[in-house]
Amino acid sequence: MENNDKMEYGTYEAAVEKSNKLEKDIIANPLNYRVLTGDRPTGKLHIGHLFGSLQNRVRLQGLGVPTFIVIADYQVLTDRNTFEQISQNVKELTIDYLAAGLDPEKGRTVIFPHSHVPELNQLLLPFLTLVSNAELNRNPTVKEEIQASGQKSINAGMYTYPVHQAADILFCKGNVVPVGKDQLPHLELTRTIARRFNERFAGGQIIFPEPQPLLSKATMILGLDGSQKMSKSRNNAIMLSATEDETAQLIKRAKTDSERLITFEPERRPEVANLLNLISLSTGEAPEAIAARIGEGGGGMLKKMLTESLNDYLRPHRERRKQLEADPEYIREVLRHGISQAREIASQTLSEVRKAMNMEI
Amino acid sequence: MENNDKMEYGTYEAAVEKSNKLEKDIIANPLNYRVLTGDRPTGKLHIGHLFGSLQNRVRLQGLGVPTFIVIADYQVLTDRNTFEQISQNVKELTIDYLAAGLDPEKGRTVIFPHSHVPELNQLLLPFLTLVSNAELNRNPTVKEEIQASGQKSINAGMYTYPVHQAADILFCKGNVVPVGKDQLPHLELTRTIARRFNERFAGGQIIFPEPQPLLSKATMILGLDGSQKMSKSRNNAIMLSATEDETAQLIKRAKTDSERLITFEPERRPEVANLLNLISLSTGEAPEAIAARIGEGGGGMLKKMLTESLNDYLRPHRERRKQLEADPEYIREVLRHGISQAREIASQTLSEVRKAMNMEI
Repeated sequence: MENNDKMEYGTYEAAVEKSNKLEKDIIANPLNYRVLTGDRPTGKLHIGHLFGSLQNRVRLQGLGVPTFIVIADYQVLTDRNTFEQISQNVKELTIDYLAAGLDPEKGRTVIFPHSHVPELNQLLLPFLTLVSNAELNRNPTVKEEIQASGQKSINAGMYTYPVHQAADILFCKGNVVPVGKDQLPHLELTRTIARRFNERFAGGQIIFPEPQPLLSKATMILGLDGSQKMSKSRNNAIMLSATEDETAQLIKRAKTDSERLITFEPERRPEVANLLNLISLSTGEAPEAIAARIGEGGGGMLKKMLTESLNDYLRPHRERRKQLEADPEYIREVLRHGISQAREIASQTLSEVRKAMNMEI
Repeated sequence: MENNDKMEYGTYEAAVEKSNKLEKDIIANPLNYRVLTGDRPTGKLHIGHLFGSLQNRVRLQGLGVPTFIVIADYQVLTDRNTFEQISQNVKELTIDYLAAGLDPEKGRTVIFPHSHVPELNQLLLPFLTLVSNAELNRNPTVKEEIQASGQKSINAGMYTYPVHQAADILFCKGNVVPVGKDQLPHLELTRTIARRFNERFAGGQIIFPEPQPLLSKATMILGLDGSQKMSKSRNNAIMLSATEDETAQLIKRAKTDSERLITFEPERRPEVANLLNLISLSTGEAPEAIAARIGEGGGGMLKKMLTESLNDYLRPHRERRKQLEADPEYIREVLRHGISQAREIASQTLSEVRKAMNMEI
């Protein structure tokens, strides 16, 4: 793996170009890569997750790339006081993963909650010594969090989470991380930690790769209320677990505009374009063609078409979801198996780390 | 264990009184307690360590108190860039422990380096969320470190080490920590973390005890140059591993004063008093009585007497040390056994923590 210079990701355009190259090489040499991705277990997933990230993960799995999906349960604690639902949410998340087609049995996919992999978490210790407070202070998320909470101080779990994230990525020597544009800076600290570890502790030997960002090409899914982000907490989301009736009800209330003629104009008519995009994602037809077919049918026909095509599209997912929900022991088994695989890999990495740092017995 | 209020340790006098009570109860009920203590592996130990802390640990071991001695190897990294000697220093430290009489085979003593106990280190994760940046900023050691380094920023390992220290103490539910006066505030954060964990995550159930400080009664050993602290790096220390000749040479160079009559006046004649104390520690005779016997014999006789009594006293220790040095496989075995015991206990604690935090699979 090349020793990428920090500045290469300086511009978004450069990052896109590099990501496209990476994409091609992944297709050609899937076994040269390890994808690291994941979610915080804050509840069930919605269609924004499915179209925005799950499908891409399933695609990478299909290419034969080893894929590690970390359920970042400790990160629920960094800015939320609620922890009552963590265990349940981990399982809901796993059900959504499996229903979407991620399959630890067939592919090279490992799904695990990081709270069960002590050897991964231990990496936080050496990594913290490679980062200065000044660097952590520059983290934009930390700054936002301080502003949002109206306090001068945040909890130290929140403050150090980018270093913990580096442990999540590097424990398996993950070298590809699917990200959106806004997450690009987050990966930079992980790259810095990998580079510094190799320089400071391993005499330049590559113990950790510098993971590369794989930029998402997914269309951003807006909330049904027209707001910038679909989110369960804003009550503008269609959950993967919703029934067909619930889905219909939600779409009925979706925001559109007063123009009868349906056209695909994302800039001028974002809400209408969003619904067209969702139909397109469900049927594969181009949004412009869908708009032309609806024509003067107006918002009513648009919504009816979306309800039908989305429910059709989600039907197999929802059926798998139901079956999985009925088999909690299988879900636990999947997680236990993932944990065991992750621990084995993390133990191996930790041994190399101890050796490099002269901490062997 | 009582739920001690934070303010009880507000004054030093209160802490002394409480420590004396604790001492009595430890003697009466040794199995109600778990002592947690340890060192950073920065090299071989000197007589200041022996008289200042090792002997107290051996005494506690003799009372039958389960004693955990953590070799804090990650903490070498927080303020030192050298890590080349860690493995060797861990073994030297262990040799000094065993030579001093700490005995994992006979007693309830567990010796281990924390870098080999992932389940202990994972506790850092939940603990970090219980502490605010503002609290870490108040740590006097952090302030000193920033001043000493002349930088505005320190590495995040140094910044968060008091939380890691809490993990070192609480992984085994340690409820007694031998400390000197200056370390008293350090323990306060561990107590706070224990209390908050129980309140926030365990509904008030006591998962972690609030460890109590056991104040050291040992006389402070000054450096041979008369400086406030004996320390290898100041070159004013008599190493436990020194030969009898080296010991004699070092004592010859020790600072005294120009008065011929030897008297025990710690305030007015700290250097002479220090040498008298060392003889007293070696022979059991009161320093005043030793001074009276030397009388007009002056610094020469004082040093001669110290050389003989200290070398006599250390002879068995040094012999054991030599035997242990010749058997590196035994040292490794002791550490491996300690690691295995520590991991078992830490895994049990981590299970309880996961259960309290609703992170079970």
